Amino acid sequence: QGTRDHPPAQAALRDRLLSAVVSCFKRHGAAAIDTPVLELRETLMGKYGEDTKLIYELQDQGGELLALRYDLTVPFARYLAMNKISNIKRYHIAKVYRRDNPATTRGRYREFYQCDFDIAGQFDPMIPDAECLKIVHEILSDLQLGDFVIKVNDRRILNGVFAVCGVPESKFIPACSTVDKLDKMPWEEVRSEMVGEKGLSPEAADRIGEYVQLHGGLDLIERLLQDPKLSQNKLAKEGLGDMKLLFEYLTLFGITGKISFDLSLARGLDYYTGVIFEAVLLQQEKEHVEEAVSVGSVAGGGRYDGLVGMFDPKGRKVPCVGVSIGIERIFSILEQRLEASGEKLRTTETQVLVATPQKHLLAARLKLISELWDAGIKAEMLYKKDPKLLKQLQYCEDTGIPLAAIVGEQELADGVVKLRDVATREEVRM
Amino acid sequence: QGTRDHPPAQAALRDRLLSAVVSCFKRHGAAAIDTPVLELRETLMGKYGEDTKLIYELQDQGGELLALRYDLTVPFARYLAMNKISNIKRYHIAKVYRRDNPATTRGRYREFYQCDFDIAGQFDPMIPDAECLKIVHEILSDLQLGDFVIKVNDRRILNGVFAVCGVPESKFIPACSTVDKLDKMPWEEVRSEMVGEKGLSPEAADRIGEYVQLHGGLDLIERLLQDPKLSQNKLAKEGLGDMKLLFEYLTLFGITGKISFDLSLARGLDYYTGVIFEAVLLQQEKEHVEEAVSVGSVAGGGRYDGLVGMFDPKGRKVPCVGVSIGIERIFSILEQRLEASGEKLRTTETQVLVATPQKHLLAARLKLISELWDAGIKAEMLYKKDPKLLKQLQYCEDTGIPLAAIVGEQELADGVVKLRDVATREEVRM
Repeated sequence: QGTRDHPPAQAALRDRLLSAVVSCFKRHGAAAIDTPVLELRETLMGKYGEDTKLIYELQDQGGELLALRYDLTVPFARYLAMNKISNIKRYHIAKVYRRDNPATTRGRYREFYQCDFDIAGQFDPMIPDAECLKIVHEILSDLQLGDFVIKVNDRRILNGVFAVCGVPESKFIPACSTVDKLDKMPWEEVRSEMVGEKGLSPEAADRIGEYVQLHGGLDLIERLLQDPKLSQNKLAKEGLGDMKLLFEYLTLFGITGKISFDLSLARGLDYYTGVIFEAVLLQQEKEHVEEAVSVGSVAGGGRYDGLVGMFDPKGRKVPCVGVSIGIERIFSILEQRLEASGEKLRTTETQVLVATPQKHLLAARLKLISELWDAGIKAEMLYKKDPKLLKQLQYCEDTGIPLAAIVGEQELADGVVKLRDVATREEVRM
Repeated sequence: QGTRDHPPAQAALRDRLLSAVVSCFKRHGAAAIDTPVLELRETLMGKYGEDTKLIYELQDQGGELLALRYDLTVPFARYLAMNKISNIKRYHIAKVYRRDNPATTRGRYREFYQCDFDIAGQFDPMIPDAECLKIVHEILSDLQLGDFVIKVNDRRILNGVFAVCGVPESKFIPACSTVDKLDKMPWEEVRSEMVGEKGLSPEAADRIGEYVQLHGGLDLIERLLQDPKLSQNKLAKEGLGDMKLLFEYLTLFGITGKISFDLSLARGLDYYTGVIFEAVLLQQEKEHVEEAVSVGSVAGGGRYDGLVGMFDPKGRKVPCVGVSIGIERIFSILEQRLEASGEKLRTTETQVLVATPQKHLLAARLKLISELWDAGIKAEMLYKKDPKLLKQLQYCEDTGIPLAAIVGEQELADGVVKLRDVATREEVRM
């Protein structure tokens, strides 16, 4: 339940999608790494807040207690600490596991791919952070998924907001995960969850509401830097200063048109410490085909400066910022789009079918195809001793093979091959 | 334990290796598929003989009882039956899991990659089987791993041998797994395991010994076809007839020089029904470097005509033959070879570093690098506001970036960029 097989057509589409993403990661100078699907249970515990319950645990069959990785970020941090790496730019594309309620039509599975790009190291503020946003912008533009917006916020700004609204520090994380629901429910419901479930005072909730419903650009940053309460809070001031710097860099990249500083963005995970961001596709109301796929976030990430230190015996910190591309949702969109277009994706790359028009010529086919393979040519033949020529040509048409190399008795006698263009039926002897 | 992280240098080498294997699979017209790492426990049970105990089981957290796949063959068969596919040529490269005693120096891990190519469908005898052997030959030749031999046998011949030697049918499978150890222990030990642990009579064991120590080519096949006892056994006769046909096809492919018909080859898995094969590298005694890696089998496979039927509600059979490339062992060899050569593999593909020779030029770097990225050029810059030029050029040398695009005050004023070849120090303004 919540997993799926990928038949050839899907595997081919996924390949195409992943290679677009990988080529962007490589364009930004990232190296690939790989880590095991299995992690020690203790590595994963206490990193995912309320979602820790979604971790798949392996049976205790003797030896270490193991679990399946929930994302690629925690294993990455574990890898950095274990190998004392303080500086790396890497990407990692692999499957992760969540014992969640699957919603497969919306691209939510229990086993799914994540595509992560992260920059680890002590650098000057906001330069790597800006590059992560540039990457999201490049990938979403390259894939032509339609209009999108990248929401940006900062955990320090949110925490500053909670503090100046009178929320005790112990309730920052629960308050955060409630604010994060503002994209799915109206403020009234979020407010009542804050007061009811999370135990905030109604006054605090109302004050929070005034902030978290704001969104804008550099102008909003400037306004909040002048805000009498917020400007007195050290964390918020730091966050707003960095946000201003980020917008300067994004202006130089020419991408601020798609960026929105949005105070309602909170993101659920415990480990974020600074900038956070999330890209959402904007619904295109005109195209009915795409409305059927209810997409939301297609990329997200942020800064997590404390996570590596949790795995280091001496608590040595390695600041990190990264982005995860929501490949499964994007895949759903591309799949639906391909289906609507009626285009048939080839699942193989075969260039030529080796065929015979008469019986008793299997040996000739085997000799020729062997020569082609040895010359690096992608070639197939039917696994029949005496197939009909029509069947062989039909196979070419069904699978998109453009050429047939035909050896008949005459060709054998003349020492030639007849090469046929399947679509035009043109033939040359060679 | 028994798993490992792949740092960038290893990931890059693995990528290079896998793409050589994939390009061979594609040359033979295979399509890619993907299946989940998780399978229902019941799918995996009863397929792996004595090795069933090595399957990783997930904890029962409510819902289905799950396990991690042990290989890619059983999931492939399950996929064919579930989707009623009776005809496909596919490859699949993915991780599998075995709760085995790891021997990491010999490339044996608990999590490791398998690279499988299989042909499913009802075809004329031995044509797909011959192609699988051709593929092993191509891959091992392409990778230049040194001399190798591909041992071939047939389960029907082995079963015929057991029958004519007086082994009861119920003991065929245990006898098979003992014979399989002949490549690791002398005949005397294999014989005593047969008599002691497996309960064969000493006479039967001696008679088996006369057969399973034979190996050769077409001549041996002809001789056994004349064998007074074996030629009376229906299964053995079928197997020998097909083996003869296989050798004819392999002769047309021009690869019999590396093929050995070897009656001691048995292979441990329950599901094989016909041809089986295994490729081993031959030790090169002169090169001491390679002796350190104790390699054995680097590819194996065979025909399994009954496996798909085990998953079909109506028992509908789909004949299959396939090969699995032992990518981990090959990887160990290549890794050791690379180390010995002192060659440094680049882990990134960055073409140009955007650099500045003076302070206060971060904005110029950000603008230029953004232009380069948008033009599809692989570019990096240091994440520092004011890095020293020397540091920037040093970074190029350390990571193998061939070019530096330098923008200084003069270049900005002139509206040009200075492009520097890092190795030759040649510079052009453009």
